[in-house]
Amino acid sequence: MSNIDIISQYREQFVTYLNERNQLGEPKTLYEPVKYILGLGGKRMRPILTLMTAEAFGAKVEDALDAALAVEMFHNFSLVHDDIMDDAPLRRGKTTVHEKWDINTGILSGDAMLILSYQFFESYSAEIYVELTKLFSKTALEVCEGQQYDVDFETRDDVTIPEYLKMIEYKTSVLVAAAMKMGAIVANASQKDADAIYEFGRNLGIAFQLQDDYLDAFGDPKTFGKQVGGDIMENKKTYLYLKSLEKASKDDKEGLLHLYSIKPEDATAKVAAVKAIFKESGAVEETKSAIKSFTQKAFDALKETELPKKSKTLLQQFGESLMERTV
Amino acid sequence: MSNIDIISQYREQFVTYLNERNQLGEPKTLYEPVKYILGLGGKRMRPILTLMTAEAFGAKVEDALDAALAVEMFHNFSLVHDDIMDDAPLRRGKTTVHEKWDINTGILSGDAMLILSYQFFESYSAEIYVELTKLFSKTALEVCEGQQYDVDFETRDDVTIPEYLKMIEYKTSVLVAAAMKMGAIVANASQKDADAIYEFGRNLGIAFQLQDDYLDAFGDPKTFGKQVGGDIMENKKTYLYLKSLEKASKDDKEGLLHLYSIKPEDATAKVAAVKAIFKESGAVEETKSAIKSFTQKAFDALKETELPKKSKTLLQQFGESLMERTV
Repeated sequence: MSNIDIISQYREQFVTYLNERNQLGEPKTLYEPVKYILGLGGKRMRPILTLMTAEAFGAKVEDALDAALAVEMFHNFSLVHDDIMDDAPLRRGKTTVHEKWDINTGILSGDAMLILSYQFFESYSAEIYVELTKLFSKTALEVCEGQQYDVDFETRDDVTIPEYLKMIEYKTSVLVAAAMKMGAIVANASQKDADAIYEFGRNLGIAFQLQDDYLDAFGDPKTFGKQVGGDIMENKKTYLYLKSLEKASKDDKEGLLHLYSIKPEDATAKVAAVKAIFKESGAVEETKSAIKSFTQKAFDALKETELPKKSKTLLQQFGESLMERTV
Repeated sequence: MSNIDIISQYREQFVTYLNERNQLGEPKTLYEPVKYILGLGGKRMRPILTLMTAEAFGAKVEDALDAALAVEMFHNFSLVHDDIMDDAPLRRGKTTVHEKWDINTGILSGDAMLILSYQFFESYSAEIYVELTKLFSKTALEVCEGQQYDVDFETRDDVTIPEYLKMIEYKTSVLVAAAMKMGAIVANASQKDADAIYEFGRNLGIAFQLQDDYLDAFGDPKTFGKQVGGDIMENKKTYLYLKSLEKASKDDKEGLLHLYSIKPEDATAKVAAVKAIFKESGAVEETKSAIKSFTQKAFDALKETELPKKSKTLLQQFGESLMERTV
């Protein structure tokens, strides 16, 4: 079976279980938005990683379904609340919860989803439940902190590269890491293996986010999901931008600061000028090198585990396939 | 020592611990609102009940402080999100979080508070942690459901008395009940005792909320904290209102429905007319009788416990003092 087939199989198994469990409770006005957002689809990346890791460490996939569901429920909770904060009208091409209903519904249904995430862990034995929920609380709090750092950075002009890396780590990659570690916990893997697989997910998550920064400026409009140049138009302080400020000549740095202070109606010239500085400063090469370095750290962590060779290969190939998006 | 002194002592012990634990984490923009709302004061009723119950069942007060903190943190989380939903400018006479900062800060800091509540349970042994967090999740979800029922009732004209009782039970009294049961769990009380003390808190909470409905219409403006007649001005469907619809003559029922369809600038005449119907219909007597009945159920549950006589007396007197607010 090809890796794509294997991943599709995990996805199918997860979605079947999700639909089985995603029943409408009372009051319907609280739970309809929960059912709606969970039904919108998405790649189901995080729950698939939980299932894949659990099976790699010798558990039955079925035993990891509740942990996977908790992870996906939490991820969707964060989408509902983030969409309110960003005033976003669309999510996965469909109306966002607060647009379809209202902001109050989005807040309250989101709160319920966060609590429901915890409840999905209740099917596990006491020992596993304790480990899973403690990891979950730590991760969930970090995600909130990452979101807050992201908001704070918008109005700060002294964001450093380490701060930026911490922000994307918290906002994105700790949940990927926790999703995988939960699979390890469900499978009763050793502490060492559980920690190593967490490092795998954490570093892969950071690499993935840095690649997202890169593709947002230099990706192929035909295959990149979002509008290419969107971050530049929004003056978003990405890794490319921060590295450019660090490395560009005095003139280019001033030019970049100016370009990031304006939002012209037609952004074509601005986007081109910013991209030229990103390249000229060497920031593009630095970003590519950082992506490689975090990806390598991820694979090094994977090697540290006691996983059978076949599982290591599968996880590494999965990581590679994530990082092989068209540049 | 008088009961008031005993309660003050619990409060002091709790607030000291709260201040010790309520330190500012990073990012400050996320945790400042948490520190702010927790520092606004309030009666600290729920955490006091946790401490009191724990000690009654033989635990050291110190051992119940983290559970008490979790309960208070959750209560304040619900205030922050509710105040956004109600667009409330003031809480405890001070600016609400979303007014002092903004709505996004209120949403995200609130989310962090919900997660922090779970983390306070982590200091307990695995067995106690599992019991506390499961009860907490169940309760937290019911509070969300109660809040949603309350919102739904605003636009419904067919709310029944059982539905109303379920709403106030979920929105208010399950947290009081859980606060007490957590004290019992920390003290390793028997399942029977833990369940009985939950029933005590649940029934007392319902009695307290019904009394609040009563006092909102008939309380003494000098001693009742809120504006007397406020519920009537807002056309709020309280127990008094729903009972009046059930029991009033056809003419009075029509009159009441009309009065509850208007919001005159000067509400004096409307409030007087509604109160007259509340009395005339017999709803006032029915409400008083329901308050008595739920209070009695609470005391009956307390009798079922194996608590020492002294503790039973203290808890009963505390309940009586809650219910002895000026009519």
